[in-house]
Amino acid sequence: MIRWSRRFSGNARAGLIPPAMLVGAKGLGLIEMTALGLPVPPGFILTTDVCREYFGNNRRLPSGLEAEVVREMQWLESETGKVFGGTGTPLLVSVRSGAPSSMPGMLDTVLNLGMNEQTARRLAAAGTGESLAWDSYCRFIRMYGEVVLGLDAVDAPTDAVAGPEAAAALIEVVNRDSETPFPTDPWGQLWGAVLAVLDSWRSRRATTYRRLHDIPDAEGTAVTVQAMVFGNAGAESATGVAFSRDPSTGDPAPFGEYIRDAQGDDVVSGIRTPAPLRGGPESLEQVMPESYAELCAAFRLLERHTGAMQDVEFTIERGKLWLLQTRTGVTSTEAGLRIAVDMQAEGLLSREQALLRLNPASLGRVLHPSVRADLPRTILTRGLPASPGAASGLVALSSDEAEALAADGKPAVLVLSETHPRDVHGVHAAAAVLTARGGATSHAALVARGAGRPCVVGAGDIVVDVAGGSFRVGNVLVKRGDVVTIDGSSGEVSAGALELEQPQLSRSFATVLEWADDIRRLGVRANTASPGDVDTARLLGAEAIGLFRTEYSFLGPESLAEIQSMLLATDDGRRRRALVALEPLQRAAYRDLFTRAKGLPVTIRLLDLALSEFLPKTADEIAAAAEAAGISAQEAAARVAARSEANPALGHRGCRLAISQPDLYAVQVRAILAEAHAADSAPQILVPMVASAREFEAVRTAVADTAESLRDETGAAARYSVGASIELPRAVMQAARIADTADFFSIGTNNLTQTSFGVSRDDAAAFLERYRAAEHFAGDPFSTLDIDGVGALLEIAVERGRSTKPNLEIGVCGEHGGDPESIRFFNSVGLDYVSCSPYRVPAARLAAAQATLKGR
Amino acid sequence: MIRWSRRFSGNARAGLIPPAMLVGAKGLGLIEMTALGLPVPPGFILTTDVCREYFGNNRRLPSGLEAEVVREMQWLESETGKVFGGTGTPLLVSVRSGAPSSMPGMLDTVLNLGMNEQTARRLAAAGTGESLAWDSYCRFIRMYGEVVLGLDAVDAPTDAVAGPEAAAALIEVVNRDSETPFPTDPWGQLWGAVLAVLDSWRSRRATTYRRLHDIPDAEGTAVTVQAMVFGNAGAESATGVAFSRDPSTGDPAPFGEYIRDAQGDDVVSGIRTPAPLRGGPESLEQVMPESYAELCAAFRLLERHTGAMQDVEFTIERGKLWLLQTRTGVTSTEAGLRIAVDMQAEGLLSREQALLRLNPASLGRVLHPSVRADLPRTILTRGLPASPGAASGLVALSSDEAEALAADGKPAVLVLSETHPRDVHGVHAAAAVLTARGGATSHAALVARGAGRPCVVGAGDIVVDVAGGSFRVGNVLVKRGDVVTIDGSSGEVSAGALELEQPQLSRSFATVLEWADDIRRLGVRANTASPGDVDTARLLGAEAIGLFRTEYSFLGPESLAEIQSMLLATDDGRRRRALVALEPLQRAAYRDLFTRAKGLPVTIRLLDLALSEFLPKTADEIAAAAEAAGISAQEAAARVAARSEANPALGHRGCRLAISQPDLYAVQVRAILAEAHAADSAPQILVPMVASAREFEAVRTAVADTAESLRDETGAAARYSVGASIELPRAVMQAARIADTADFFSIGTNNLTQTSFGVSRDDAAAFLERYRAAEHFAGDPFSTLDIDGVGALLEIAVERGRSTKPNLEIGVCGEHGGDPESIRFFNSVGLDYVSCSPYRVPAARLAAAQATLKGR
Repeated sequence: MIRWSRRFSGNARAGLIPPAMLVGAKGLGLIEMTALGLPVPPGFILTTDVCREYFGNNRRLPSGLEAEVVREMQWLESETGKVFGGTGTPLLVSVRSGAPSSMPGMLDTVLNLGMNEQTARRLAAAGTGESLAWDSYCRFIRMYGEVVLGLDAVDAPTDAVAGPEAAAALIEVVNRDSETPFPTDPWGQLWGAVLAVLDSWRSRRATTYRRLHDIPDAEGTAVTVQAMVFGNAGAESATGVAFSRDPSTGDPAPFGEYIRDAQGDDVVSGIRTPAPLRGGPESLEQVMPESYAELCAAFRLLERHTGAMQDVEFTIERGKLWLLQTRTGVTSTEAGLRIAVDMQAEGLLSREQALLRLNPASLGRVLHPSVRADLPRTILTRGLPASPGAASGLVALSSDEAEALAADGKPAVLVLSETHPRDVHGVHAAAAVLTARGGATSHAALVARGAGRPCVVGAGDIVVDVAGGSFRVGNVLVKRGDVVTIDGSSGEVSAGALELEQPQLSRSFATVLEWADDIRRLGVRANTASPGDVDTARLLGAEAIGLFRTEYSFLGPESLAEIQSMLLATDDGRRRRALVALEPLQRAAYRDLFTRAKGLPVTIRLLDLALSEFLPKTADEIAAAAEAAGISAQEAAARVAARSEANPALGHRGCRLAISQPDLYAVQVRAILAEAHAADSAPQILVPMVASAREFEAVRTAVADTAESLRDETGAAARYSVGASIELPRAVMQAARIADTADFFSIGTNNLTQTSFGVSRDDAAAFLERYRAAEHFAGDPFSTLDIDGVGALLEIAVERGRSTKPNLEIGVCGEHGGDPESIRFFNSVGLDYVSCSPYRVPAARLAAAQATLKGR
Repeated sequence: MIRWSRRFSGNARAGLIPPAMLVGAKGLGLIEMTALGLPVPPGFILTTDVCREYFGNNRRLPSGLEAEVVREMQWLESETGKVFGGTGTPLLVSVRSGAPSSMPGMLDTVLNLGMNEQTARRLAAAGTGESLAWDSYCRFIRMYGEVVLGLDAVDAPTDAVAGPEAAAALIEVVNRDSETPFPTDPWGQLWGAVLAVLDSWRSRRATTYRRLHDIPDAEGTAVTVQAMVFGNAGAESATGVAFSRDPSTGDPAPFGEYIRDAQGDDVVSGIRTPAPLRGGPESLEQVMPESYAELCAAFRLLERHTGAMQDVEFTIERGKLWLLQTRTGVTSTEAGLRIAVDMQAEGLLSREQALLRLNPASLGRVLHPSVRADLPRTILTRGLPASPGAASGLVALSSDEAEALAADGKPAVLVLSETHPRDVHGVHAAAAVLTARGGATSHAALVARGAGRPCVVGAGDIVVDVAGGSFRVGNVLVKRGDVVTIDGSSGEVSAGALELEQPQLSRSFATVLEWADDIRRLGVRANTASPGDVDTARLLGAEAIGLFRTEYSFLGPESLAEIQSMLLATDDGRRRRALVALEPLQRAAYRDLFTRAKGLPVTIRLLDLALSEFLPKTADEIAAAAEAAGISAQEAAARVAARSEANPALGHRGCRLAISQPDLYAVQVRAILAEAHAADSAPQILVPMVASAREFEAVRTAVADTAESLRDETGAAARYSVGASIELPRAVMQAARIADTADFFSIGTNNLTQTSFGVSRDDAAAFLERYRAAEHFAGDPFSTLDIDGVGALLEIAVERGRSTKPNLEIGVCGEHGGDPESIRFFNSVGLDYVSCSPYRVPAARLAAAQATLKGR
């Protein structure tokens, strides 16, 4: 027989710890805290099996569950000495969701369950106090009405009344608006709440969240039923949210907020602005020093047990601390790095454990730009700095507006009075977020941190007028579409688009990446498209320039004019003159490259543009190019038209151009080799779009001929190697033959994905999102390598290439080289290195180390 | 020690027959004829090893060769009783090229070698006659000057002189124009001629010919040195070219031409118009009946020995027949078929041998259109019908002009006074060929027949004026660019473009294909794009419609308007109305298909167009579509622009459209199934551009849903199967998973080639020819399957697909399905069928039979 539930109680002996997949992350935290001897109110957990059965059986609860819940409630009565729905001291419970994966705020919770008028009166009579009893009852009616009965908002006609009148008025509102009347029977309340929590698993916002975070629908949520404790039991009571360290900076002291005489939801929802745990006369440290000390001790125990920064919910009921939840806290990337380094130093984690804790994809966030401190600015307001980084954008006053702007490719700053869980998509779509209310642990802050968006919360002096299309700060009016800048590190909100600057990288950042470099097997290089990128690549720890794209060096106005003249000219003299004019421009580009590379190895890809991309487009451009080429505009237009391509991605480009325009490539190769010789560098020359061994050999021979003539003419004997870009499926199949003469392979996974799927990167948007939603494709194959298809081809290329040359150097130069999941695959198939854009180099270094550790 | 030569002589015992690769096809023919006892003047052959050594060693002759040639010449002197370059009866020789592969007229030949003034006088004195001696000497001086010394043309200042004066005048011309003086020493002549023949292997025209016919450069040519016999020895002498059967019709009687008192080159070059072998008082049969009978007997012997129609050169010297060359003759396709069937009936060949003799690629030629006999026409002139079929085109007066027209996509009729070997490329480029001079065995006729171009030769009343840009027939002037029609079957040349009609297929054609059908394992189906194609496919023996492209059914003006309205409409009502309007149009298309298919199985591919291809293009079209869709022209233009694609071949097309526009595909599927049910046909429904198993399954499910709703609504329970088009490399890698739910695979090799190579069919022309010339690609991968790359992927698809379903039906529906070389590969990897365009079905049937025979 299936056991549908698991118990936890400080009175009971600790049993086997069940897996999170069964009791949810929150449930597991409660069971673990109980086992560690921490103060947790007793309760029991309906496992995720219940949720799966429920949805698998057309939303019917499994048979046997009812009897089991009755037994568990009887047990809870005996644990607490209270009575559920009978006479005696009333047992009130919370009913909370809790999935195996963290889904903050996405699922439903009901507090104070078990209350009705009789209960309230008994509670008041039991010496708990009138105020607590009726406040709790009112809270319960509202929450039940909203969460279980699905009403928009349950508000009494007037706030003036209190006590029994207020409760009666609220029940009247509920019964007026709801099809189902408010259940006064606690058992009816309990089953209603359980079903509501289960149903919340399939709500739109929860489903969206799971899709964004790749959480399987089949996981399901557990349901925790736990004895209530009361933070709203007067001045000696409080409720709060606390982190064992500062989630924004990583500072190793408890950080958080609390509200006196309140219940948990008041903090999380951001409706009341809370007081801090530490610092100032209102802080918990000052007001309730014993509870604060107990909380600190609990954190030390929890961190030693979990090796991670903890995020807890606590309640103080008349001076007694209770922990209601613990989980590994979400931190800013910078804080995560600092905590990892600190915890390693404190002996809580090994280096390897610390590395595995970090999320490589988030590393790019500390590279986000910040506002330049030395420049004047118009500060509109200040709020709480809730997610670091800075961004400018157009003011959007709803999540939908932010999404619409993002869809148009425009940066949006989402400005809201307060955020609701339904705003998740808006926060993701926005470049930055600003809210008038809420604290650093509000939904907005949490989601923004998770998404790496700069965020300022609790900017209390702004007034948002959605209908009016603006927000006001004092007497300044900021309209929808105006540009503002959000600094999520300082909390400043400024008018206009401020100049941003690159961040200083922290010591923790450097330390973590040094650890990663010690461990990883896979090399990490950088893809660069201009000499400026080379500086960034060096700064961020690339060990080589894995791909230097040379197209930019041909597309400057001077070079472009010469190339157009060369392509359009009909007499050989003019063509030759254009080539002569190109040479110094080319040499300057590579001189700059080698100077900036400062000895880093460099892979230079030969020109890889479609011929059609060089040609003039407008009538004016054509006329100018025609004059330079010494032909009529009409003739030039005809030649341009003749060279237009139906599918430039599959056109006259890459090494096809090297074969049809050998003199142009000779100029490039000569410039590369001459500057390489001068810089004493031995570049790896990469031949793009290779489809056959013969064409690669032809280009290779042409490179050698150019090198020879350079040596004969100038004595400059540059060292170099020549490799093939493997980016076409045919090259994969022919890898053994290509490896005969290739010194190295560089696998161009962007193009290999394009050709394998037959999907153009430029055109995929029209259907790709639909495909991802329907899971026709596992994800966006241009972001994370499609291991089943493109990965299978890549493995063939590696195997065949190394069947010819066992030590053949093989790297990846597509943007997949910066994607952690893809890196794990690249590591597993024995590639030598990945090369990605400079800003993704740190993530790649960490991901490569994790791949090594996971592979052990 | 290497033997550089091989001998043949009627006096010697037949030794081991050497391979053609060593002595060339011509040399082998001489050795074989000698072995059969046929009259062949003695000689020896320098093997192709000499040629390879010569070019491999920087054009130096191998050591040891000189001594060997001296020995062989001494042997030849003793065989003939004549003396080379000494006193006594002079030994004259011919020096001829002869490659292993036939390269008619491409390589050089020198006749009458060994002559100088002394020899001529001795020859005259030896009773040979003054005329023969000096005529031969003059011929030799001209030929040597042109072939060996490289002069353009050697003509005496006046034709009036003859005998020694003419020879002296010619030598004076040679010595005036040439850097090297005319060698009077026979040995000097011999070495000069040998080197000239070897050098001709690398001439531009020979290199071009080899490229066109896929003959490796490394084959090399042999050089035959053979004792001369003289067709120019007076009225009892003659020279001619003869086929054992009519090469144009296959009629089983000798066919050919001869000229009395002439040497061989006079016939082949077309300078003198010859008399026929049979028919009429001038014929060889009438004039020299004994020689004619001896020739017929030789043919019977040769045909029995070779099992093939023979093409011989002969000389009659004073009544004695000599055979100078034999080879398997080039025939028209129709003649080839008839000869194969006749020879099988005559017991010369088995069916299998007969099938293997035929060239499948040529079969399409008998399907060429001909001039409708019943229509009036303006006949300009008549010539000899030299290559069957008819074509119209623009008059081109040089091969370069014909090439330029062809490059512009225009049909050219190449009109020349006479053809030279250098005109090969012009004949290939032209749609048809017309010459003023030459016979049915002239170069023009030979090359045109090989290339399948209609050709009329010897139209003696036309006068070509290249400089004037016209030709004249009587008083009619036809200018460059005027349109004429050539009927290569009747010899008629008509003004303008005549209406052409489809050929009646001969009994031989049917017989050969019946034999092929009995033998082949591979199925042959037809690709069709319209119901009209279905008729042709049935006529030409397709056993099924392997691919019915449905795009045409959506692109008719009525359908297109509805689709545009559907794609542009913003309100659902209008979209639905468009879909409703499409249904009867769709049903009519498939009703027609099933009616014409007359029970043939049919594979119907679901709509495979890029979404962008449906959209209106011009401003007028956009305005019209906007009105139909009920939106503004501006909005329509914006929507059209938003849907334009950078690379439509990799865009929103194929089953991606089935997923994004499910209602459109539902209309199509419903129409197919309703008509299939009415016709009691069980169509195979093909899903295009499948990249993942999930998307295939989604389309398959949608088809099933449509079938179910059709059955529920109308009771029509159509039988059908659903298969995947494997045309993307990712589908290849995922073939095992796709086969889980696919009933069959159809491999789209056109698109698989496009994506594997990363080469767009539409854009490849810009570089493909250069690639083929440089052999970077083995051939045009869109014509003949690239076995190493695309073929390797195809094998993976077959292997993985059948790992899931061992009996999975797999066919090919790319145009490679009609290419004989590709068919051999498809047969070898176990495909079930090929499907190609209707006109290629006969070739595919024959090629499939050959593949079976070769695989045994």
